[in-house]
Amino acid sequence: MPSWNDGAAKQAIINLVHATTDPSSANFVPVGQRFATFDQDGTTWVEHPMYTQVVFTFDRVAALAPQHPEWKTTEPFKTVLAGDKAAMAKFTMKDLMAIFVATQTGMSVEAFQQIARDWLATAKDPRWHRPYTDLIYQPMLEVMKYLRANGYRTYIVTGGGQDFVRVYAEQVYGIPPEQIIGSAISTQYTYDKSGAGILMRPPKLLLNNNFSGKPEDIYLFTGRHPQAAFGNSTGDQQMLEYTEAGPGAHLMMIVLHDDAQREYAYGPADGLPATDVGTFTQALYDEAKSKGWIVISMKHDWNRIFSWEK
Amino acid sequence: MPSWNDGAAKQAIINLVHATTDPSSANFVPVGQRFATFDQDGTTWVEHPMYTQVVFTFDRVAALAPQHPEWKTTEPFKTVLAGDKAAMAKFTMKDLMAIFVATQTGMSVEAFQQIARDWLATAKDPRWHRPYTDLIYQPMLEVMKYLRANGYRTYIVTGGGQDFVRVYAEQVYGIPPEQIIGSAISTQYTYDKSGAGILMRPPKLLLNNNFSGKPEDIYLFTGRHPQAAFGNSTGDQQMLEYTEAGPGAHLMMIVLHDDAQREYAYGPADGLPATDVGTFTQALYDEAKSKGWIVISMKHDWNRIFSWEK
Repeated sequence: MPSWNDGAAKQAIINLVHATTDPSSANFVPVGQRFATFDQDGTTWVEHPMYTQVVFTFDRVAALAPQHPEWKTTEPFKTVLAGDKAAMAKFTMKDLMAIFVATQTGMSVEAFQQIARDWLATAKDPRWHRPYTDLIYQPMLEVMKYLRANGYRTYIVTGGGQDFVRVYAEQVYGIPPEQIIGSAISTQYTYDKSGAGILMRPPKLLLNNNFSGKPEDIYLFTGRHPQAAFGNSTGDQQMLEYTEAGPGAHLMMIVLHDDAQREYAYGPADGLPATDVGTFTQALYDEAKSKGWIVISMKHDWNRIFSWEK
Repeated sequence: MPSWNDGAAKQAIINLVHATTDPSSANFVPVGQRFATFDQDGTTWVEHPMYTQVVFTFDRVAALAPQHPEWKTTEPFKTVLAGDKAAMAKFTMKDLMAIFVATQTGMSVEAFQQIARDWLATAKDPRWHRPYTDLIYQPMLEVMKYLRANGYRTYIVTGGGQDFVRVYAEQVYGIPPEQIIGSAISTQYTYDKSGAGILMRPPKLLLNNNFSGKPEDIYLFTGRHPQAAFGNSTGDQQMLEYTEAGPGAHLMMIVLHDDAQREYAYGPADGLPATDVGTFTQALYDEAKSKGWIVISMKHDWNRIFSWEK
């Protein structure tokens, strides 16, 4: 893990691997039962100033606007088309859901995948002028590789859309679709014109994979407690607690965004600026410290954030 | 696959493996993307005269009756306690759900697993006087092993309860919990007295993994089409269709219970007696024949049904 500075955070990862893979360890876990869960937004890639999937959603409004002239005068679409970023930042969950339903439901799952794939191939982050899939944290890729080299399966457990993340996760994280657990709408089985079975995307939420949804969905998908969990916000608290509640050795880590120079700085934990995107409260910070969870300082623990940095 | 007689059914399995694992094949599938789904009741183990989990559910009524004196006079519990098998066979889904809610919800997921484990260790099938987990079809175990030896992951995709099947699936099928897709209730994250995170079982159905639910949940869990699917009843039809709709080579197989001597005989396909437990209609039989799906005759294709047969 060359992008990690020596210190307590790096050492804690190594210690977990030793404790769970050494056959003489009291906390040995057989291969096949070793797994680690990673939140995505703010934990394995950049989430500021806005979640990538929300940017995608707004871009879909612009792309579909010619077919929806009524959006010019209908909220919340009008605000998106006007490009009013201050107003968009204040959208409620209801606003975002209305946009999501209008732009990302009603098609087949394959059609949605193609739309997401096309967007990811061309969209660029405005700060670094790079594809969003370049904004993965190199140290987290190294943790994933280190864990996999030691018989762990790695999972993404994200509040983001499962279908969206599955489009690129194998390529950018080396994580196959069946190890992506995310928020998900129901699908509806029906038949295409040729009579072949297809799955459509109706506007109905099945899994809201945030907060308590994370342990609930980890259990639904795997039936087990992870040995390690990585998060960065209050939406990950229950996943970390559930990991800690499992048998044997475990590791709970939280990324603190404290490097405005190289990435962003927000909390409000540890005196950092408050944010609605990836909130890391002082209460969670204190809980982490009191329970021995490891807070990863991007500034001090990571000597490199992106693979393409000089 | 020594329990299979030579013939079209056995050959079709071998052909799929050759087509998907030979690097020179047009239908080659890389390791990691190869997977096969198996219905459970009637496909990998005995489902007659009654689904095993329903037997478990009725046994739970008897076990819990001392704490519920009102059940002696309240339906559907009264009928179960009276042991009236004819009346129990006529229970509606609403009756069964009332019993399920009263006996299998309200506890933690670990408490439920222990109850299921204890029951499986002692309960015996009345015909063969053996544990239910002895009633696995040996030919299907051989298919699973053959597929796994060729880089396939094997999944159970069952209308039965995911939590119930996960208790024994690793031991009897060699299939880990994360490869069991079944009907599932929601879980609810909360805290035990020590403050540790736990998951409870509220009486709320999340996934009904039958009929269209099978392809929908296969997609939810894996994001892909299987290359092979095995079923035995109308509840598996959509899973087989969805498998057929996938890219490349695929194999759809349906077990026909046509051996009253060694197991049971029911359809009503192919002139066999009708049943409400694992119904295999003539329409499905005709669809299978017209589409080239393989109907497995237990009588003719399997030279051994159970591992412990002489």
